[in-house]
Amino acid sequence: MKRINPSLRIGLLGGGQLARMLALKGHELGFEMWVLSEKSTDPAALVAAHHVLGSLSDESALRGFVEPMNAVTFESEFLDSDLLNRVLKNTRATLLPSADLMGKLQDRLSQKQLLADFKLASAPFVPVRSVADAETFFKKHKSGIVLKQRRFGYDGYGTFMVRTSDDLKKITNSLNEYRHGFIAEQLVKFKRELAITLVRDKESSFAIFPLVESKQVDARCLWVKGPIRHAQTKRLVSKLKKFMNDIHYVGALSFELFETNKGLWINELAPRVHNSCHYSLNAMSLDQFSAHLIAISGQSLPQSVPLTKGFAMMNLLGSSHQKPEWSWPIDANLHWYGKLENRPGRKMGHLNVTADSPDKALKKVLAVRKRFLL
Amino acid sequence: MKRINPSLRIGLLGGGQLARMLALKGHELGFEMWVLSEKSTDPAALVAAHHVLGSLSDESALRGFVEPMNAVTFESEFLDSDLLNRVLKNTRATLLPSADLMGKLQDRLSQKQLLADFKLASAPFVPVRSVADAETFFKKHKSGIVLKQRRFGYDGYGTFMVRTSDDLKKITNSLNEYRHGFIAEQLVKFKRELAITLVRDKESSFAIFPLVESKQVDARCLWVKGPIRHAQTKRLVSKLKKFMNDIHYVGALSFELFETNKGLWINELAPRVHNSCHYSLNAMSLDQFSAHLIAISGQSLPQSVPLTKGFAMMNLLGSSHQKPEWSWPIDANLHWYGKLENRPGRKMGHLNVTADSPDKALKKVLAVRKRFLL
Repeated sequence: MKRINPSLRIGLLGGGQLARMLALKGHELGFEMWVLSEKSTDPAALVAAHHVLGSLSDESALRGFVEPMNAVTFESEFLDSDLLNRVLKNTRATLLPSADLMGKLQDRLSQKQLLADFKLASAPFVPVRSVADAETFFKKHKSGIVLKQRRFGYDGYGTFMVRTSDDLKKITNSLNEYRHGFIAEQLVKFKRELAITLVRDKESSFAIFPLVESKQVDARCLWVKGPIRHAQTKRLVSKLKKFMNDIHYVGALSFELFETNKGLWINELAPRVHNSCHYSLNAMSLDQFSAHLIAISGQSLPQSVPLTKGFAMMNLLGSSHQKPEWSWPIDANLHWYGKLENRPGRKMGHLNVTADSPDKALKKVLAVRKRFLL
Repeated sequence: MKRINPSLRIGLLGGGQLARMLALKGHELGFEMWVLSEKSTDPAALVAAHHVLGSLSDESALRGFVEPMNAVTFESEFLDSDLLNRVLKNTRATLLPSADLMGKLQDRLSQKQLLADFKLASAPFVPVRSVADAETFFKKHKSGIVLKQRRFGYDGYGTFMVRTSDDLKKITNSLNEYRHGFIAEQLVKFKRELAITLVRDKESSFAIFPLVESKQVDARCLWVKGPIRHAQTKRLVSKLKKFMNDIHYVGALSFELFETNKGLWINELAPRVHNSCHYSLNAMSLDQFSAHLIAISGQSLPQSVPLTKGFAMMNLLGSSHQKPEWSWPIDANLHWYGKLENRPGRKMGHLNVTADSPDKALKKVLAVRKRFLL
């Protein structure tokens, strides 16, 4: 039995809410949590034992931060993988998921190619290097296509729906300006959006979180409920496990899915802890943040099982520039990110609720949401 | 609907594991958490956003710390209540539970008198100011008595069992030396030890945690399991609520109980979050730390309900001076306190487990405990 020294040092690249929740759970597990981010008022900087001020694109800042760590991870996949590989060389620190996998998955083109290589169902796509590419693809898929920036798209930013030729004309300038290029995908007709998160450790053990429904409004996640039963879940999970084993993935990997007439299609992957799995903080025997830290620190994962028959998560999204306010009693688990500035659409926190069924949990969290003025 | 500004500043007096868990949960709720303690390596100092070095008996350190806080609380009731009242005067900060109640409950004599005033069942007792007092009381209770220091007793320290006249002779010196005096209680014959925690807010709403069994070995809590059904629970809870309402108690109050032939007797009270309620971090819809912070910050409490049919908590007690080690997978929720030094009997962390029944949870946590070398 390999025993570990509890005082492993874990470095988090980035200081947002995902890093904050990783830091809080890392403290609970006894890890020494370090955060590298640009502002001392970043959500994770406010709660981590150790905060280092610095830019994630500054080689010497990265090198100094990474050097004394046992394991390093990130909250956003949009980092420079070449830079990270250079920095990590000749250090004892391990970056997980690896910089190479991060690089491959941050690019929607190589991500789609990877899915195709593994025969994981997803929408037909083409790389788009010119407006002509998009036009050709739209002619083949008259019902609609979606254009996505290859890199740095997030919460709908850099994503364009094309249902008519006019739609395409309107975005021509955007396509030409954007230097990283686009991909075009067939616009998928779906019943609802689902999501699933799996965490894999180095010895191929998994913490498998349940399938959930994820409600998107204006390209932002509004709420999540679950667990969702689906005839294809077992088959999907087994394919995803094989995929993660084959690419030697370590850590949390989240899959956004479309429920279509042809089955479950993968919309997008995120190589990190994910908003669609925040419910796990209160509804599972093991949450995604702890599972991710256990895996990237080289330990073996226990299973994670639901504690109740239903759960729901609701994002607390800003809708103004006012200081947020709320009133207790809040009959839910509040997770507040401590952001100093409120903005429309900004993720300020989230609410978790457990109940006897997914729908009861959703109903309850919708009611609790009314106590917040954001 | 009274809405609050989320950035309330909460000060914790003390830096041990209870303050650590309060700090972690306070961060989650969006409070600005401050810790005053003597060492920068104290468990809470390592995870709090703001740590101030200082002694809890230093008037100027206390004053400087308390001044800018909205609410202040403590993790140990053995503070100087007169000093605290002096410090708090002319500040906007509120100390909760109040210094007066803390002072009354820290002294076993006034605690027992308070219980007697409210007709809450507990063992017969007398104040002991001399060895003669103890001898007289022992003559009345031949089956045995227990002598307890009036103040600063903890985990069995300052507690002496007297079953024979020889026992009494042996401790005569201790009794004479101890300047704060003792009380003597009848030694209670009990089937098992139980515990219950209630948290009350300023508007008399309660978060009521379930009755649990608490297993003590060498006067230290080894494990807790629950929820425990008992015919008298309802009656007990209603008496405890009345008690807390009448004394205007705000925050968490923990009751250690004896299950006797004559019903549930109160052994001791602790005016704070308590080891016997640590299971609530993973087994309840609301944990004791969050509930305490919500109450002392002046908000209204939601209810707390069990998530599963059974739970268990096991303390990870040191048994050597070696650096602790463990091996994953740990099929439990690990809460590690980050103490730099291991010592026999020291509380280094705890494990929480949920299951279909209290006994299944206990069995599981006992198995997981074997993965730890302490």
